Amino acid sequence: MTHLPDSISALIAALTRLPGIGPRSAERVALHIVQTDNASVRHLAEAILHARQTVQLCTVCGALTEASPCRTCTDTRRDASLICVVERPVDIFSIEKSGTFRGKYHVLGGKISPLNGVQPEDLRIADLERRLASEPVREIILALGTDVEGDATAFYIAKVLTRPGLSISRIAHGLPAGSGLEAADELTLSHALSGRREMK
Amino acid sequence: MTHLPDSISALIAALTRLPGIGPRSAERVALHIVQTDNASVRHLAEAILHARQTVQLCTVCGALTEASPCRTCTDTRRDASLICVVERPVDIFSIEKSGTFRGKYHVLGGKISPLNGVQPEDLRIADLERRLASEPVREIILALGTDVEGDATAFYIAKVLTRPGLSISRIAHGLPAGSGLEAADELTLSHALSGRREMK
Repeated sequence: MTHLPDSISALIAALTRLPGIGPRSAERVALHIVQTDNASVRHLAEAILHARQTVQLCTVCGALTEASPCRTCTDTRRDASLICVVERPVDIFSIEKSGTFRGKYHVLGGKISPLNGVQPEDLRIADLERRLASEPVREIILALGTDVEGDATAFYIAKVLTRPGLSISRIAHGLPAGSGLEAADELTLSHALSGRREMK
Repeated sequence: MTHLPDSISALIAALTRLPGIGPRSAERVALHIVQTDNASVRHLAEAILHARQTVQLCTVCGALTEASPCRTCTDTRRDASLICVVERPVDIFSIEKSGTFRGKYHVLGGKISPLNGVQPEDLRIADLERRLASEPVREIILALGTDVEGDATAFYIAKVLTRPGLSISRIAHGLPAGSGLEAADELTLSHALSGRREMK
């Protein structure tokens, strides 16, 4: 009945798999694409492929970067005594936007979640321990989500990493309960960073 | 400060040019793309290019199609005595979804808009007149938007196409004032088609 050309239906199906793009929105984008000038469409497709091909994970901190080690890891103006631990690479961008953190980062790559089969050894915790041995780290800030798994992960890391001369804190108020970092605005994250509390 | 890798920023810029995709939504999609498996990303880029390359305009009615003439024009089960005139190719899909029209289509390619430099001769009105000479058309239904330009275009076409034995109508209530066809739901379009009124 609807009889959209097959290639448009296929494009809609591919677009619907993107986050936040529903069927209606995908249809609108697809119909726009087939009616836009060739150059713009090619530019979009190339931007997609180029981004996917050039972006990799930093071997030191796990951030998204085009060159490893990433710009944050190699930036000597950043405070190497401070490491902010986040769950996912995109969380770094959320914190950078708040403009209140000038230390280094470490991406865990997830959070401890026995129900989903994620154990501590699946996270980049051993890498973090190696960094503690080789870098002049004096404080670790855990910037994890406030859900049960985020709590469990924070407590686990605080326990595992405890050593003399190392302060371990967790970002404080501002994060709405049960949500991740990406939904927080700059001010909320700024408050959360400055209000961090020491874990023992 | 934000220091997203350049290729991600470029991708966000390209995505923001799509309809209904704001900066926040584009960022979310871009960060998803660089962290998704290569095959899915390549599939998306290819779907975009393939759709743009294979979809063309039907030389008869102006619809989006992969083969010209399109499936609607070549479908002998459809009523060739009835032509529904729409502004844009995508409007055909909106009407097809309502499931209440079994005639043929004709896409104008726009609406008369002196302010935007669109004159009657810029639209596919002469093509429509040629179809009237070669096809057994008895009724034309004008399914244009309800804004001032849509009104002007409808009246212009009704005046130009008037000839003995040809009924010219315009779809009726259901279309919210000042909006185009794409925002209407199936039922509204169904009402509008059945409630059409004769123009003289």
